[in-house]
Amino acid sequence: MVFVSRQEHFNAAHKLHNPAWTDERNRDTFGPCANANWHGHNYELIVTVKGEPDPETGFVVDLKALSDLIQTHVTEQVDHKNLNLDVPFMRGKMASTENLATAFWEILRRELPAITPAQLHCVKLYETPRNFVEYYGG
Amino acid sequence: MVFVSRQEHFNAAHKLHNPAWTDERNRDTFGPCANANWHGHNYELIVTVKGEPDPETGFVVDLKALSDLIQTHVTEQVDHKNLNLDVPFMRGKMASTENLATAFWEILRRELPAITPAQLHCVKLYETPRNFVEYYGG
Amino acid sequence: MVFVSRQEHFNAAHKLHNPAWTDERNRDTFGPCANANWHGHNYELIVTVKGEPDPETGFVVDLKALSDLIQTHVTEQVDHKNLNLDVPFMRGKMASTENLATAFWEILRRELPAITPAQLHCVKLYETPRNFVEYYGG
Amino acid sequence: MVFVSRQEHFNAAHKLHNPAWTDERNRDTFGPCANANWHGHNYELIVTVKGEPDPETGFVVDLKALSDLIQTHVTEQVDHKNLNLDVPFMRGKMASTENLATAFWEILRRELPAITPAQLHCVKLYETPRNFVEYYGG
Amino acid sequence: MVFVSRQEHFNAAHKLHNPAWTDERNRDTFGPCANANWHGHNYELIVTVKGEPDPETGFVVDLKALSDLIQTHVTEQVDHKNLNLDVPFMRGKMASTENLATAFWEILRRELPAITPAQLHCVKLYETPRNFVEYYGG
Amino acid sequence: MVFVSRQEHFNAAHKLHNPAWTDERNRDTFGPCANANWHGHNYELIVTVKGEPDPETGFVVDLKALSDLIQTHVTEQVDHKNLNLDVPFMRGKMASTENLATAFWEILRRELPAITPAQLHCVKLYETPRNFVEYYGG
Repeated sequence: MVFVSRQEHFNAAHKLHNPAWTDERNRDTFGPCANANWHGHNYELIVTVKGEPDPETGFVVDLKALSDLIQTHVTEQVDHKNLNLDVPFMRGKMASTENLATAFWEILRRELPAITPAQLHCVKLYETPRNFVEYYGG
Repeated sequence: MVFVSRQEHFNAAHKLHNPAWTDERNRDTFGPCANANWHGHNYELIVTVKGEPDPETGFVVDLKALSDLIQTHVTEQVDHKNLNLDVPFMRGKMASTENLATAFWEILRRELPAITPAQLHCVKLYETPRNFVEYYGG
Repeated sequence: MVFVSRQEHFNAAHKLHNPAWTDERNRDTFGPCANANWHGHNYELIVTVKGEPDPETGFVVDLKALSDLIQTHVTEQVDHKNLNLDVPFMRGKMASTENLATAFWEILRRELPAITPAQLHCVKLYETPRNFVEYYGG
Repeated sequence: MVFVSRQEHFNAAHKLHNPAWTDERNRDTFGPCANANWHGHNYELIVTVKGEPDPETGFVVDLKALSDLIQTHVTEQVDHKNLNLDVPFMRGKMASTENLATAFWEILRRELPAITPAQLHCVKLYETPRNFVEYYGG
Repeated sequence: MVFVSRQEHFNAAHKLHNPAWTDERNRDTFGPCANANWHGHNYELIVTVKGEPDPETGFVVDLKALSDLIQTHVTEQVDHKNLNLDVPFMRGKMASTENLATAFWEILRRELPAITPAQLHCVKLYETPRNFVEYYGG
Repeated sequence: MVFVSRQEHFNAAHKLHNPAWTDERNRDTFGPCANANWHGHNYELIVTVKGEPDPETGFVVDLKALSDLIQTHVTEQVDHKNLNLDVPFMRGKMASTENLATAFWEILRRELPAITPAQLHCVKLYETPRNFVEYYGG
């Protein structure tokens, strides 16, 4: 079993705002992240799959195909978008890094079999160089 | 003459949209950067000053004081903000990296004498790790 | 279960020197790291916690609160300090990256319940960009 | 149990080419990576070992000894080499990142007991900053 | 005058070998870089242009257009290639980082007027993260 | 004229302390950098030389020779040392990044002619990833 990873990126706007709460509670909980007029990030996304290398190619997965799949089904859906307003799969959820990572996992787990028998292992998402989350599907 | 630099960062939303143009011309010119609902970035800002080291301290400028000045007068004015809507000194200008860098230069040139006789040399602003601008005031 | 990480940093002096040994044995074992007059590093510390995202906030843990806790209880205790002389919780221990990481784990495990029901998962400590350790508490 | 890692690097040429296949199938499968005249990379290699810190040294493993071992037995065998032509332990295998990582694991597992009772935990190999593999020996 | 930069990358094989010299002199001069079977690198290329921001767009140059131009005329000509064998504009020259940078400058100076009135200012080329050259055309 | 750069690193301890001042004035001026028991950094040093590429080698300077020269005359003199106590060329000076950079410049300007007709252009020294100085000799 070898673990193979591909890093992609996207730039997006969001805010942390719970519509069931008052503005005051949103500000107390989320601080400047609750700014009504949004802020944004350069997100970095690392997707890891695991499997046996194919003896004929030496590959667990063709990284060009994995990159294309991540771009088509994930990063192009969120790049230069507003994560609260423009992204159907984030509707009704807080636009936190945790919720983005688990939403990306669901998409990738569904799409990955189209390109490889390898299994999805981890989705790692950097919101900033110093803040990041990892989700292993469990 | 020694050049001394301090790097700070901020996270903000913006869009590239000229209000004098039609939506179509904005989309044709700015592509996804014109998305009506905004997108955003983790900006990295490097400010360089130049001067003679003080023989008693070994410093051209106290970097703690330079960092505080950049934060107070620049990064706290834009961090977790919308660069088009929330920032008085960007009103009426396109929120491009070029215009941000020149606006930051004007602020820093005005404020720097309060902490040092050293002169402002360069404002370098990364919008993404692969796109950045530099302004030397000329 | 989602894993959430926050990176902090500190700058410190140390030496590797076992007081039960002769100077010669210290030099033979630790090489230049045994220099009597100390040397130092820019340490980078990544703290990972794990838990379920709260549906109301989307957070496993408030990263601002985690950052503050790491700074108050860990990095401010060691920043601009001598790890052999100035840090009570390192007294009587070799100031190796391994021992720092396990000491930081004990502090964080004790303090974390004050801010979150999430559990401490990993302390990762870079002594240099090419040398680092990880501790999972086991 | 503490995990200790050391990062080394090497620069090498390779191509992805299965000699049992036609040129056309190689091009269809590997794209520009099949270029007959080779291409190359700056590889970054991170080796992780795990064990108990020695109370007298504070070390799981002497990182200078681990660095020397990785250089002697791995990176000097591949640095400024052609991975398809010049490296005996890659003969008859595709020069993929997956196969390099597993070959490095076998070498390191064999050589590590000469310097430490700690166990090999992971070989992580970056082919580019955005493509990397990990092998844990299982 | 504002300076605007775009970073691109490519992966290539090369060797340092002067065909007018004996193999021994090549080895004595270039060491492992003279390996007959090639080695390679992940090159990082930063192109800087200078000009006045357009008041209607806020841009010195459209960075998407600059990126496309660099890719079409430079990086796609060298990516996954052998710099000694596969690249017409390097024929008869040593494949050093210096000569690559000056060759890229000539191409970019010729092509840049097609997309912008801004002027080429600098070509910066990293062969490795620790070795790089800059050329300003003078 | 092409500019060629090599990056090296060293780890050292220091403090900012003017012996002509009271302890109180040192603390007021230098804050935690004045800690009597020292602190330290992982310094990164970039040395830039300029000259014409040699047509026979393609080199402005042999970067292996430049690296060896920097290590012998600069980084080995300061690595794993106390910059205030152990380094003859820093005696009687404040151990600031500014003073280190200008001292390194003097050494390199004196030693460079032994390996190349190229001229020293810049010494750039990072004390931390966010604080750095540049000296061009003027």
